[in-house]
Amino acid sequence: MSTDASVRTFVAHEANEFVEDLKAWLSIPSISGDPNRTGDVRASAEWLAAALRRTGFPTVEVWETGDGAGLPAVFAEWPSDDPKAPTVAVYGHHDVQPVAPLELWHSGPFEPDERDGRLYARGAADDKGQVFFHLLGVRAHLAATGRTAPAVNLKLIVEGEEESGSPHFPALLREKADRLACDVVVVSDTDMWDRDTPSTCTAMRGMLAVQMDFRGPTGDIHSGAFGGAIPNPVTELVRVLGYLHDADRRITLPGFYDGIVELTDVERQLIAKLPFDEAAWLRTAKSTAAIGEAGYSTLERIWARPTAEINGIWGGHTSPGSKTIVPSEAHAKLSFRLVAGQEPTRVRDAFEAWLAQRVPAGIEYTTSYEGDGVRPCLTPLDHPALQSVTRALGRAFATEPGGEPREILYTRQGGSGPEADLQDILGAPVVFLGISLPEDGWHAPNEKVDLDLLLKGAEATAYLWEDLAGNN
Amino acid sequence: MSTDASVRTFVAHEANEFVEDLKAWLSIPSISGDPNRTGDVRASAEWLAAALRRTGFPTVEVWETGDGAGLPAVFAEWPSDDPKAPTVAVYGHHDVQPVAPLELWHSGPFEPDERDGRLYARGAADDKGQVFFHLLGVRAHLAATGRTAPAVNLKLIVEGEEESGSPHFPALLREKADRLACDVVVVSDTDMWDRDTPSTCTAMRGMLAVQMDFRGPTGDIHSGAFGGAIPNPVTELVRVLGYLHDADRRITLPGFYDGIVELTDVERQLIAKLPFDEAAWLRTAKSTAAIGEAGYSTLERIWARPTAEINGIWGGHTSPGSKTIVPSEAHAKLSFRLVAGQEPTRVRDAFEAWLAQRVPAGIEYTTSYEGDGVRPCLTPLDHPALQSVTRALGRAFATEPGGEPREILYTRQGGSGPEADLQDILGAPVVFLGISLPEDGWHAPNEKVDLDLLLKGAEATAYLWEDLAGNN
Repeated sequence: MSTDASVRTFVAHEANEFVEDLKAWLSIPSISGDPNRTGDVRASAEWLAAALRRTGFPTVEVWETGDGAGLPAVFAEWPSDDPKAPTVAVYGHHDVQPVAPLELWHSGPFEPDERDGRLYARGAADDKGQVFFHLLGVRAHLAATGRTAPAVNLKLIVEGEEESGSPHFPALLREKADRLACDVVVVSDTDMWDRDTPSTCTAMRGMLAVQMDFRGPTGDIHSGAFGGAIPNPVTELVRVLGYLHDADRRITLPGFYDGIVELTDVERQLIAKLPFDEAAWLRTAKSTAAIGEAGYSTLERIWARPTAEINGIWGGHTSPGSKTIVPSEAHAKLSFRLVAGQEPTRVRDAFEAWLAQRVPAGIEYTTSYEGDGVRPCLTPLDHPALQSVTRALGRAFATEPGGEPREILYTRQGGSGPEADLQDILGAPVVFLGISLPEDGWHAPNEKVDLDLLLKGAEATAYLWEDLAGNN
Repeated sequence: MSTDASVRTFVAHEANEFVEDLKAWLSIPSISGDPNRTGDVRASAEWLAAALRRTGFPTVEVWETGDGAGLPAVFAEWPSDDPKAPTVAVYGHHDVQPVAPLELWHSGPFEPDERDGRLYARGAADDKGQVFFHLLGVRAHLAATGRTAPAVNLKLIVEGEEESGSPHFPALLREKADRLACDVVVVSDTDMWDRDTPSTCTAMRGMLAVQMDFRGPTGDIHSGAFGGAIPNPVTELVRVLGYLHDADRRITLPGFYDGIVELTDVERQLIAKLPFDEAAWLRTAKSTAAIGEAGYSTLERIWARPTAEINGIWGGHTSPGSKTIVPSEAHAKLSFRLVAGQEPTRVRDAFEAWLAQRVPAGIEYTTSYEGDGVRPCLTPLDHPALQSVTRALGRAFATEPGGEPREILYTRQGGSGPEADLQDILGAPVVFLGISLPEDGWHAPNEKVDLDLLLKGAEATAYLWEDLAGNN
């Protein structure tokens, strides 16, 4: 068993070299969305593979995706020497977002720059920095415990297309499911509440996106001659979508809320403990009023409640001036965010039944879904793996090593991501170990990461492998 | 007093020369919407002015509009020699629609062609033919009665911009209100039910058009991070518009139906007498189902009931693929058709009040109306002028001159037009004397008019001037 002091000392001792190594990786412009950068994404994968080998991982492989048409992921494995050790798979990604507008950067996005304890570069927080602290963390774990192999069977899967929507990742997970088999997935691609409030994420919302196409008259027709006696596809689309929420802004689809894992009183109390400044949040939301499902706070609404959001709508005359027509067509793009207990396919069926009931004769419609949607994921507060993460973070953020552990709070993500695929395809619970901050500028100019928090991440992983192995 | 036989004989005798004259007028391509044809619209006005002078009108003037920036109208006046005679103003227009697609015409649109008793040319029915029968009609009236001046003070106002939305016509009416002062307006710019069902129009719907602009977040924002907790302008616009009709498809604006002149039982019975083929009508409407306000037939819905029609809507992401945003803006174009008893400005106020009540905090909106809207017009069945029109048409369509008058039925127009300005600015009731048929191809290739019906029009006017003067 390690002493927390020895972990912290090791990490501090290695910090300079760790940061220099990370800078080298951040210098590679691995923008997966830029077709001119595929060579850089491949170089990034190879760089990481070499670093993992230097770290000591006995198995390191660069995995092609999409039969070579995709961008490569990196896989590494370091088995425990304890035959009863649990298996952990760490998820992250080595590709980055584009950098425009370049003129807003104070230093080059691929010329990593240290200023005031922060490291500025594209990918510093999202996600190279957070992948890289795992390489330091496992070394701290080994050094402090005197082990030659980790207390857990440690696997890393670091994909190269996350910023492009992970088009080949689910197929890769299925293809490599045996190699990736694990008891728990640790995702390091999220942030904490703020510098003073270390936290971990416990859930992400799922999603179901659909385009609706309504057709009425076979061509636009005169609204004076015919209006009022035939169905108008825009009006009918609006009548369907306008009734999708009731006066309490609850979604009216029959069965929509069935089976939802409701927030417990404890969870609501913990959410309420977060220092939430609604006025500041509204500025981030570019909005002037918070509004949503009755009976829930803003954070509860975006983290733990499902939504039906119209992302776009169009039909009929949209140019200047008036044109008195009954339009021929109307279209809308709708997306549902889903929470634990909801199945995208079940929501799709409910929506189809509802539409069939509400669209009148004279309107033909089609719906096009984006695949089967993304399932929500949730790890309950009493799950052993989440409790391990909580304890590991509490130790890492303790003022004195070995002292009173820091209280760790719980956040969720309103968005949807590949985490659901990890959960579903690998059949393992997902926990989150992320140390980025909301102000780190993900996808924006001057992305940065706080170096002290990167080291906290390394420290936390060292504790986490011990804790998960039952050696805490 | 004339004998009907002498009117009919006169008209038949003059028919050939009348048609040849009309062909000359139809050869002038007076397309008001084509900037290259302004010279032709002016030539058309001058041609008509000369024809009116030949007919015997003592006063004929070409009136410039828009201080010369518009296209000219033609005014003619022929005072009665009876000081107690009522004054009639006939309305029509001498400009025509464009002719594209030219390749679908069987003969040149401005090379009038007689085939099977029909005259094919742009403007044959809409509206030169129907203006021109008035010139023959007044001569028949004089010849058959032996008068040297009409039994009514007869005025004609024939505008040159009707097919371009009559942009200068209301101003012209106001400017020339003294010259145009009259007891009744006779509009000859409409059609009858069908060849076997002579009819006259008794009403036109009014209109109020508005564009609604809703703004939520100051920019599109992520629907995962923020969705469900801030108002989405598309969703809010849809919630406003979706509730504009209730389950019976009645409009829900408070006070919207207040004061409406409801259809009488007699009117409903007369509408039901029209040989209406709903399946054929649906083909014209390019639709597969008739639907509208509960409790009304299709004809009642388009003629005598108000509507709220969404003419266009747009907002958010409308390109292929999904984009999970809460959009920043949403827009819709809406037009109300109004019926007698409704005031466009009152409807505007009701709509504004309704919007103010329904749009939540966090959404800013503006509304832009097209002026004050168009007022509806309605001439009740028991109005003396309408009864005169009914009797005049009944005589013109009688099988034998002086025989049993033909039953005349009543139609309405679902659209809105300059007729409301005539009614409002001149302060006189509007009646309709039109002999075109629905299949005459207004605004379409191969526009035509049936020559025997043109002569019926001339015959009817001869009876109408007598009847209105109380000499029937």
